[in-house]
Amino acid sequence: MSLTGDLSPDEFRAAAHSAVDWIADYLEHSERYPVRSAVAPGAIRAQLPASPPQQGEPLAAMLHDVEHTLLPGITHWNHPAFFAYFANSASYPGILGELLTAGLNANGMLWITSPAVTELEAVTLDWLRQLMALGDGWFGQITDTASMSTFYALAAARERAGFDVRTKGMAARPELPRLRVYCSEHAHSSIDKAVIALGLGLENLVKIPADDQFRMRAALLEDAIAADVAAGYHPLAVVPCVGTTSTTSIDPVTVVVRIARRYGCWVHVDAAYGGVAAIVPELQYILDGVDAADSFVVNPHKWLFTPMDCSVLYTRDAAALKRAFALLPEYLVTQTQGDAVNLMDYGIQLGRRFRALKLWMVLRAFGQDGLAERIRFHCELAREFAGMVHFEGGWELTAPVTLSLVCFRLAPSGATEQQLATLNAAIMERVNARGHVYLSHTKLGDRYTLRLAIGNIRTDRQHVELAWRELREAAAAITQGE
Amino acid sequence: MSLTGDLSPDEFRAAAHSAVDWIADYLEHSERYPVRSAVAPGAIRAQLPASPPQQGEPLAAMLHDVEHTLLPGITHWNHPAFFAYFANSASYPGILGELLTAGLNANGMLWITSPAVTELEAVTLDWLRQLMALGDGWFGQITDTASMSTFYALAAARERAGFDVRTKGMAARPELPRLRVYCSEHAHSSIDKAVIALGLGLENLVKIPADDQFRMRAALLEDAIAADVAAGYHPLAVVPCVGTTSTTSIDPVTVVVRIARRYGCWVHVDAAYGGVAAIVPELQYILDGVDAADSFVVNPHKWLFTPMDCSVLYTRDAAALKRAFALLPEYLVTQTQGDAVNLMDYGIQLGRRFRALKLWMVLRAFGQDGLAERIRFHCELAREFAGMVHFEGGWELTAPVTLSLVCFRLAPSGATEQQLATLNAAIMERVNARGHVYLSHTKLGDRYTLRLAIGNIRTDRQHVELAWRELREAAAAITQGE
Repeated sequence: MSLTGDLSPDEFRAAAHSAVDWIADYLEHSERYPVRSAVAPGAIRAQLPASPPQQGEPLAAMLHDVEHTLLPGITHWNHPAFFAYFANSASYPGILGELLTAGLNANGMLWITSPAVTELEAVTLDWLRQLMALGDGWFGQITDTASMSTFYALAAARERAGFDVRTKGMAARPELPRLRVYCSEHAHSSIDKAVIALGLGLENLVKIPADDQFRMRAALLEDAIAADVAAGYHPLAVVPCVGTTSTTSIDPVTVVVRIARRYGCWVHVDAAYGGVAAIVPELQYILDGVDAADSFVVNPHKWLFTPMDCSVLYTRDAAALKRAFALLPEYLVTQTQGDAVNLMDYGIQLGRRFRALKLWMVLRAFGQDGLAERIRFHCELAREFAGMVHFEGGWELTAPVTLSLVCFRLAPSGATEQQLATLNAAIMERVNARGHVYLSHTKLGDRYTLRLAIGNIRTDRQHVELAWRELREAAAAITQGE
Repeated sequence: MSLTGDLSPDEFRAAAHSAVDWIADYLEHSERYPVRSAVAPGAIRAQLPASPPQQGEPLAAMLHDVEHTLLPGITHWNHPAFFAYFANSASYPGILGELLTAGLNANGMLWITSPAVTELEAVTLDWLRQLMALGDGWFGQITDTASMSTFYALAAARERAGFDVRTKGMAARPELPRLRVYCSEHAHSSIDKAVIALGLGLENLVKIPADDQFRMRAALLEDAIAADVAAGYHPLAVVPCVGTTSTTSIDPVTVVVRIARRYGCWVHVDAAYGGVAAIVPELQYILDGVDAADSFVVNPHKWLFTPMDCSVLYTRDAAALKRAFALLPEYLVTQTQGDAVNLMDYGIQLGRRFRALKLWMVLRAFGQDGLAERIRFHCELAREFAGMVHFEGGWELTAPVTLSLVCFRLAPSGATEQQLATLNAAIMERVNARGHVYLSHTKLGDRYTLRLAIGNIRTDRQHVELAWRELREAAAAITQGE
């Protein structure tokens, strides 16, 4: 039967070939565009029709609108001078993987609904584990974001604690103690969100002070847990971080694990950004202690050149995760259930994209050497940038450079913290508004700090040098009152 | 700097053009493949190297492996005779959208990190709302799956209930009553998972019996809530369903809302599969009452020809969702925060793919008329298939055909339910193993039932006729003892 607006395969071929060429040009020349979109709030929306079309429109018209209407509203994460937040950049093999995933559109909710989805995920995540030089015995699964990975890890911890929250819930149970989670004051907000969602309550997320290098102070962790136990609380989990968001500091995982073990806590390591650096042989130490943890998260869509989204949760105790979430309604019963892993059993989501494909293609396209070389190069660029800052009068580094992030600021002598915050915010906004470079900021205690985060597949030395030029020019213009 | 394994733009172009041609051929000829993968557990994994490559490999080698190694492990959701579960099929404009999303790789965590991501999402979801003939005042956001949409809705309900679970949690609070959630006995397992995750406990999910057409019995809902209130429980939310998984029955939303309002319950409507049918003017009635609810979920990646994943959560009370989840660490503070929606505030995930693009392209490519015509055609095919079953001796329909799903079975007179279950499971397995057609089953009470779910963009009358032929042949072979 022929239906209104049927698209011909030829129309698809033509449009998709055009899109491929457009993307290839875009990626070769993303420097044409301002890194940070310059549009005002509402400007993109105002250009789009308020109502959907009655009849279908040709694909070519949409490609035109993507380029002319939407593109000005894109902040270019693929731009080699994108230094804000943490990078996520799309490498060629990753894009190719996404294209194939969309075409196949397999849904790996059950093993049988596409065995290759489940099995390639297992193989690829085992490869990634080996690349990071971790021991075996880890169960890996892909989630969309680190926030979900951490949420699942803490759900497994809650289940393993033995209070049967799954069945009985947490309210109106006089026998149930407060369940407490510990992380450093520099931990990511995703831990707060997980604690909210799981019904643990933000009051029960204990933030342990960090040392002068922004690492969790393990002695204070032990004090906090001991005090909580004495007060009748139940210590549920500790979440040390390998590569914090503000400074990429690395919590002392080995010591944290040792303390946590004494109290029966689950240890979940947040290595969302930093974990993949262990692919570089001389950086393997950053995951010291992780093999003794219960779970950890690493995000290939950050520093492993895999398009959004792709986070990986590894757990030692997949059974706990499965006990937390597995349910088998009749309409999902299949004959093979005894023989194969059904990934829907390990989380909330039922539907599952074939995300492993893009990651597998990235790992194959670069190989261990290629990945290590890129990550090493990014760390080298960060050290070079830090050197430039360090030796320039009036500027200072505000945190150690552990990986590929540099924290720094202009700090003329005699200025108050409030003045420095205003000054550096103005420098950042001036640089970002020019559009050649994009960076972001954080606060370390009361110290307003700029962040230059390197990790884009296309970033080269010249882009880091450009950032430094732009920063000094902006600083000069502002301090000279322009 | 030149790094090991650098890919040239030309290599990408060549591989991506090959992939486009391959996908176009695949979609035109997906009938070449068995619908359900025929591999044994572990067979795909066994063909893949146990360790990652040391050096990079060419993209062309990967395309070869996708076709020759992985494809046998794919269950073809794009096959026009895929009738299992609920369809999710990838239309041409949807695939094109995914390709562009991968190329741009924008992350819409904040408005400023790509204004077009946030604004196109708002526009597209408003279009979708209009297509379903709902009133305005709904706040839409894209999530990955209906399970997450429902989880978020119930998190918002928990927040709005006023017990400050966000801060205080649920344990060790003598003043906190048990919070109860209500759904029909035919509700999807995602509601169970949300109740587990939120710490409410499965004991507090009350499953209301359904009538003989598998619809929630509203009078029993009212009884259950009243009894709970009398027992000191707090009725938190009711989740009626428009299009249940087993039979696509439609709960009486209007009445449910009226009851829920009396008790201050949040009403979340699970219209994950069925909701989009309201795009067909004569089917708008299926969403009767939804405009008075607090939230609802609909999945474009099911029956709206949008590649995985794309679920949409609409809420009337976005402020409750934001109160539940919003957190603003310093490293995410931006100057525009006052003016623009930052979608990270409405859930757990921080990173956000540009998922709206594919949905926008699907809505534009088909237009309202094209979408309505396809959905209407699927419903027509379902009625035709039901007619064939109804008029064939020995077969019976086991549920009303409300949309595009048919529940049916072979039911020779005198057979016990156990015998019928064995017989129909054998028929299904024989059909599925042949690979021309793929369907799934459910249980309605103790009645084992086959399901033929129509919703694939490529399904035509001949595929439904093929399914019927295959089923009768399998039945004949089995009953004749072959």
